[in-house]
Amino acid sequence: MSVDLTLDPRIEDLKQRTRSFIDEHVIPAESEIDAHGAGLADDRLAALRTVARRAGIFAPTAPEEFGGLALDHRDQSVVLEESGRSVLGPAVLNCAAPDEGNILLLDKKTTPQQREQYLAPLARGEVRSAFSMTEPSPGAGADPEMLATTATKVDGGWRIDGRKWLITGADGAAFFITMARTSERAATMFLVDAGHPGMTISRHVTTLDSGFAGGHGELIYDHCVVPDSAVLGRVDEGFADAQVRLGPARLTHCMRWLGAARRAHEVAVAYATARPMFGGRLADQGMAQEKIADNEIDIQASRLMIWNAAAVLDRHEPARQETSTAKVFVAEAVNRIVDRSVQLCGGYGVSYDSPLPHILREVRPFRIYDGPSEVHRRAISRRAVRRSESGSLPGDYS
Amino acid sequence: MSVDLTLDPRIEDLKQRTRSFIDEHVIPAESEIDAHGAGLADDRLAALRTVARRAGIFAPTAPEEFGGLALDHRDQSVVLEESGRSVLGPAVLNCAAPDEGNILLLDKKTTPQQREQYLAPLARGEVRSAFSMTEPSPGAGADPEMLATTATKVDGGWRIDGRKWLITGADGAAFFITMARTSERAATMFLVDAGHPGMTISRHVTTLDSGFAGGHGELIYDHCVVPDSAVLGRVDEGFADAQVRLGPARLTHCMRWLGAARRAHEVAVAYATARPMFGGRLADQGMAQEKIADNEIDIQASRLMIWNAAAVLDRHEPARQETSTAKVFVAEAVNRIVDRSVQLCGGYGVSYDSPLPHILREVRPFRIYDGPSEVHRRAISRRAVRRSESGSLPGDYS
Amino acid sequence: MSVDLTLDPRIEDLKQRTRSFIDEHVIPAESEIDAHGAGLADDRLAALRTVARRAGIFAPTAPEEFGGLALDHRDQSVVLEESGRSVLGPAVLNCAAPDEGNILLLDKKTTPQQREQYLAPLARGEVRSAFSMTEPSPGAGADPEMLATTATKVDGGWRIDGRKWLITGADGAAFFITMARTSERAATMFLVDAGHPGMTISRHVTTLDSGFAGGHGELIYDHCVVPDSAVLGRVDEGFADAQVRLGPARLTHCMRWLGAARRAHEVAVAYATARPMFGGRLADQGMAQEKIADNEIDIQASRLMIWNAAAVLDRHEPARQETSTAKVFVAEAVNRIVDRSVQLCGGYGVSYDSPLPHILREVRPFRIYDGPSEVHRRAISRRAVRRSESGSLPGDYS
Amino acid sequence: MSVDLTLDPRIEDLKQRTRSFIDEHVIPAESEIDAHGAGLADDRLAALRTVARRAGIFAPTAPEEFGGLALDHRDQSVVLEESGRSVLGPAVLNCAAPDEGNILLLDKKTTPQQREQYLAPLARGEVRSAFSMTEPSPGAGADPEMLATTATKVDGGWRIDGRKWLITGADGAAFFITMARTSERAATMFLVDAGHPGMTISRHVTTLDSGFAGGHGELIYDHCVVPDSAVLGRVDEGFADAQVRLGPARLTHCMRWLGAARRAHEVAVAYATARPMFGGRLADQGMAQEKIADNEIDIQASRLMIWNAAAVLDRHEPARQETSTAKVFVAEAVNRIVDRSVQLCGGYGVSYDSPLPHILREVRPFRIYDGPSEVHRRAISRRAVRRSESGSLPGDYS
Repeated sequence: MSVDLTLDPRIEDLKQRTRSFIDEHVIPAESEIDAHGAGLADDRLAALRTVARRAGIFAPTAPEEFGGLALDHRDQSVVLEESGRSVLGPAVLNCAAPDEGNILLLDKKTTPQQREQYLAPLARGEVRSAFSMTEPSPGAGADPEMLATTATKVDGGWRIDGRKWLITGADGAAFFITMARTSERAATMFLVDAGHPGMTISRHVTTLDSGFAGGHGELIYDHCVVPDSAVLGRVDEGFADAQVRLGPARLTHCMRWLGAARRAHEVAVAYATARPMFGGRLADQGMAQEKIADNEIDIQASRLMIWNAAAVLDRHEPARQETSTAKVFVAEAVNRIVDRSVQLCGGYGVSYDSPLPHILREVRPFRIYDGPSEVHRRAISRRAVRRSESGSLPGDYS
Repeated sequence: MSVDLTLDPRIEDLKQRTRSFIDEHVIPAESEIDAHGAGLADDRLAALRTVARRAGIFAPTAPEEFGGLALDHRDQSVVLEESGRSVLGPAVLNCAAPDEGNILLLDKKTTPQQREQYLAPLARGEVRSAFSMTEPSPGAGADPEMLATTATKVDGGWRIDGRKWLITGADGAAFFITMARTSERAATMFLVDAGHPGMTISRHVTTLDSGFAGGHGELIYDHCVVPDSAVLGRVDEGFADAQVRLGPARLTHCMRWLGAARRAHEVAVAYATARPMFGGRLADQGMAQEKIADNEIDIQASRLMIWNAAAVLDRHEPARQETSTAKVFVAEAVNRIVDRSVQLCGGYGVSYDSPLPHILREVRPFRIYDGPSEVHRRAISRRAVRRSESGSLPGDYS
Repeated sequence: MSVDLTLDPRIEDLKQRTRSFIDEHVIPAESEIDAHGAGLADDRLAALRTVARRAGIFAPTAPEEFGGLALDHRDQSVVLEESGRSVLGPAVLNCAAPDEGNILLLDKKTTPQQREQYLAPLARGEVRSAFSMTEPSPGAGADPEMLATTATKVDGGWRIDGRKWLITGADGAAFFITMARTSERAATMFLVDAGHPGMTISRHVTTLDSGFAGGHGELIYDHCVVPDSAVLGRVDEGFADAQVRLGPARLTHCMRWLGAARRAHEVAVAYATARPMFGGRLADQGMAQEKIADNEIDIQASRLMIWNAAAVLDRHEPARQETSTAKVFVAEAVNRIVDRSVQLCGGYGVSYDSPLPHILREVRPFRIYDGPSEVHRRAISRRAVRRSESGSLPGDYS
Repeated sequence: MSVDLTLDPRIEDLKQRTRSFIDEHVIPAESEIDAHGAGLADDRLAALRTVARRAGIFAPTAPEEFGGLALDHRDQSVVLEESGRSVLGPAVLNCAAPDEGNILLLDKKTTPQQREQYLAPLARGEVRSAFSMTEPSPGAGADPEMLATTATKVDGGWRIDGRKWLITGADGAAFFITMARTSERAATMFLVDAGHPGMTISRHVTTLDSGFAGGHGELIYDHCVVPDSAVLGRVDEGFADAQVRLGPARLTHCMRWLGAARRAHEVAVAYATARPMFGGRLADQGMAQEKIADNEIDIQASRLMIWNAAAVLDRHEPARQETSTAKVFVAEAVNRIVDRSVQLCGGYGVSYDSPLPHILREVRPFRIYDGPSEVHRRAISRRAVRRSESGSLPGDYS
């Protein structure tokens, strides 16, 4: 068998440099954010990015022509996990959602002009972006078939009408990749600049998490007319074209959040080791050992689920099953890990004296964002049933 | 058997009036608090309390001589659960922690003068109070044996020295019930006025939850000398005297938080009923039905665990086993219920458009406050083992 | 509130006598059954029943006119839980399924002649019976709407045709209560004697459990003609009439199996107390304490869920919600308790040196029998949704 | 990164041939075993092994010089998982416990004469063997430090005295590898032939599982004198020498049992696909989809945990952390998978009409055998704490 799970020296080195950067530069900056989750000031972010660029670890997923490292999915798994050990890490390294997924999509689907206009500044970290897909009920949420925003062909372009909701990074984004229905059963993606007539950010949607730059916005498209050149990818092939982004973006979420879970675990183990209790240390109490061990197991299994899906993506297969199973497993494991870490730390764990409340608030929505666990489970089950019906074995692999 | 689980007409009426008050007056006021959890303005709180007094539902646990309803533990179960349907409810009705538990303790352990000076204004809702017990590591937390704050006998009084941490309601409390070690194996409670020389609130400890008036503070006692008349209860019997408060206060937490969980469930069921999905409603999807059903089951079981412990307390038994098992079960069930409700609501559930993020943040620490689940489990297990050793049956009841 | 959860002296006495009988007479007889689950020899069963009759604890649910104790549902909860502490207990006391449920149904729905012919010997413990409802796929299982067995009106009677499957107690039953479709949307119950022409037990279905006298059989009805007098209850009202049996029978399962779970817990606590490990006792290890405490909690919550449903049944309400939530909770709690007990006992727990493998095998199917948890959850959720739609509160009680 | 999780053609071919053999020859033979778990008749086993040898898939872990395939740990992962799809598979292929682990140990630790006398016939499948380690309470169980059996030096050999319990494969084993204390803090392994004077199999211990040839026995060593040549490995280094066997044997258990879980899943998916329910198929119900999806996820994660540990073993590292985390995760995942499969199949799932009751009974003890989950968790936690204390990161990998 060709199973090999070791890191080659180049990526091992990159891992260590990323870890050092996070430990030495990013974690100390966490004191600058408050319990309300306001992020870093712009100049501080810029300063940290300069250090990251010098350290050769900036933009790990972006194309090399724009200064990125262009790591494949497996190597991303290593570096993005390290970046996630601080809630500030991914933004500093320019590998945070939604920009990181948008970079991937733009790299694959843009025209040369779009590439220069949109991808280049995004990959270099000069601007932010948003992916404008989710809609308020009864529109597209877990079920994309319910897409209600429309784009109607007009002379020389398209007129977009509808509402979007929970659009991550909206506030401050330079442009929006907007999914709109262009025929009864088909959709198209459009590149819409911030401030473009007819599109407004109607409000900020405050959420449990606060770690995404630009938060989550509600958008109104009202007679928003864009030129034909705003079409991203192919007309009426928006869902298919967006697949390029879907699986990988889901997986990079897993990587970053696994890093956050590891950080919670590190804090909890250190606390349990230092805390006296019942004549010994907390770390020697059986119920604490159980939590520590389960964290270790969940971290290891999560990492393997990610690597497995990354390896399939690197073979240029769609990896729908592997990214779905990884998403469900990791999203839930990460929440278990953080919950156990909070519990281990007791009062310290629910106080902002520790980083745990921040992490807890960031990871809870992960079981919902990028497809709720339930929707992924439905898809995973349907695939298993189809395999069974066609005479192959559910639970098998290739 | 004498099992009866129906409400008599008087308490049924009180339940309905409390519910109406919460629905009509308190829930609408929730829009006045923000995502950072800042509570109601003082005048708004006062106004709502006036309405509550008129409705005859104010201070359900306080003695009648101070305008309270003096409900027994079982009747409290009904009313406090209703009060908890809004995160603002308990404070409005003056049955929030820690005041509600302190009222009970003061009612049982004060001298006549202390009763007039401390209990009267607290029961009437004129002041707030705090219970100053928990200490920073390596002091008293889950294990009260580790109490590090000392009270040394001085002429005419006691000198208190030490640090307290995570003291709920500290900011704005009129007085503090302070536990301090007065001999190697014994402790004593003292009534310390806010602003008393030698005691300072050194800082506010920001936590995941934000629903307690006055938040959680850190206190320093530095040569804080109080007169002999400040002793609450008996010298060297602080732990025993505090038992009066311990079980019941644990149980009223359960009641209030069960109300919060019910509210989350109500929001989620309404959402699932209205939300179209996969050609039907979300509420018709099997995985949603499972969550709704499990919420119903957890709510019912939680209520029964509370009522069972309340019935034992009403027989004037210490009910340590019953309040411990109720605390563990309800704290965990409530978190499960809120978690499922969030998941049912998807993006809406993690946004402050719904009350769910607030509720989620309030209930998570409940698995830690008033004894972490692990410490209760340890005590429950030790009791079962002692029963087995003495020839009686673990799992039995009387 | 009228909450009262104490036992009156009469039932406390009955509880203690039942416990003593189980401890002194029934548990010792367990050595007579083997790992394959073959039950007691007939003469041994008869001998134990004689002792039970003398002890005044025989047939706790049967009418007094036939020598039973005619306990109400709440009092049954106490006694049947005690009976379940041995897998042999319910059969010895004549309160085992399906006879116990059939006694209840016959007591409510028989004609005087049927009463004498069928109920009398059953209640006295002279014969066994079966409830012939479940069918092989694609017939009636979790979904009774799929009932495929038909009863066609013929001159002077009915001709029954169809197959039944997993009919508990079939082998050796004196008669079968048979559910058959008598019109497109309606069904009728029939009393069919063992050996009646046209009905055969085609085979024994071996199952994981082995504690039901007569096991589980497969039946064939092939031109099985019964007279009009064989109709039990009303024609075309079989489903409605069977409701009399449905909720209570579901609940007595809970009672008996809770007793089995308690027994497992008792064995495990005794083992953990005696077993040295890591320099102490197993019972002092944190992970063991967690299991012991969770067993205590699950036992207490299960008992309360049962008592709650029993109290509603004793008010002559259908208690569909309460018996469904109790069934789901108790079936799953009982399995958790037994699983933890096995784990606590290690190798001893999976060996037939302990009673645990027997208990584990008996309780696993309980999550399926009498309605799988999933079907109950679906019904519970639908009720909650209807309450929400009608403006009342899900999670509420009356 | 060097992550690669594809099978090379040679092992892919071996996988397919093993699967075909199991499907075509072994699964049909399952009808020959009964609910009491009696295994195949000797001649039938011999016949199937002949087919397996011809198919080139016999003894996948044994040295080539004895006709084995000498697969490395990663390749074993593939083949042993396939073998486990039938409870009969591992025995037929001569890769069942305890022989498979004993082959590994003997291959590493025997003298040339021992190799010929003990390893050769075992690897060829001519005899069976046992590993005689576990003792009745208060001896060595989860805590090997409690080893009570002693071996005392006598002239020309050793005298073994003690009791062993739950010794898998005892009945019919040709020889026993016996661990005995040879000094206060050290132990030694001895090869003891069946029938050797002083050693008797005192009884058969009936257990929940019934799939191990020879069951589980209780042994008495009473003045059992063996020659010096019976020492296996080094005197006083028995624990260290046995490590060779410990991790790998734990892992092959995972492989085989993962195969059993997959089989359960296959049966359940097929059933859910065929079973009509509520106007659709069971497989279309949300709660069924959830179970099917969770099975898929658990199977995938289990396989990755196994492969990960196997890869470390193939680098000739002890892999204690990796085999421990794999053991805990897989043992529990496998039980979840089988439990969900049973639940999906309803009555069919608890009847021996399906293979599920057999599988359920086989896998439950796996959470206890080869180290209970709790003991592994304790060790995993202690390693994490030591990493934290030494300044490296818990949750990290290399």
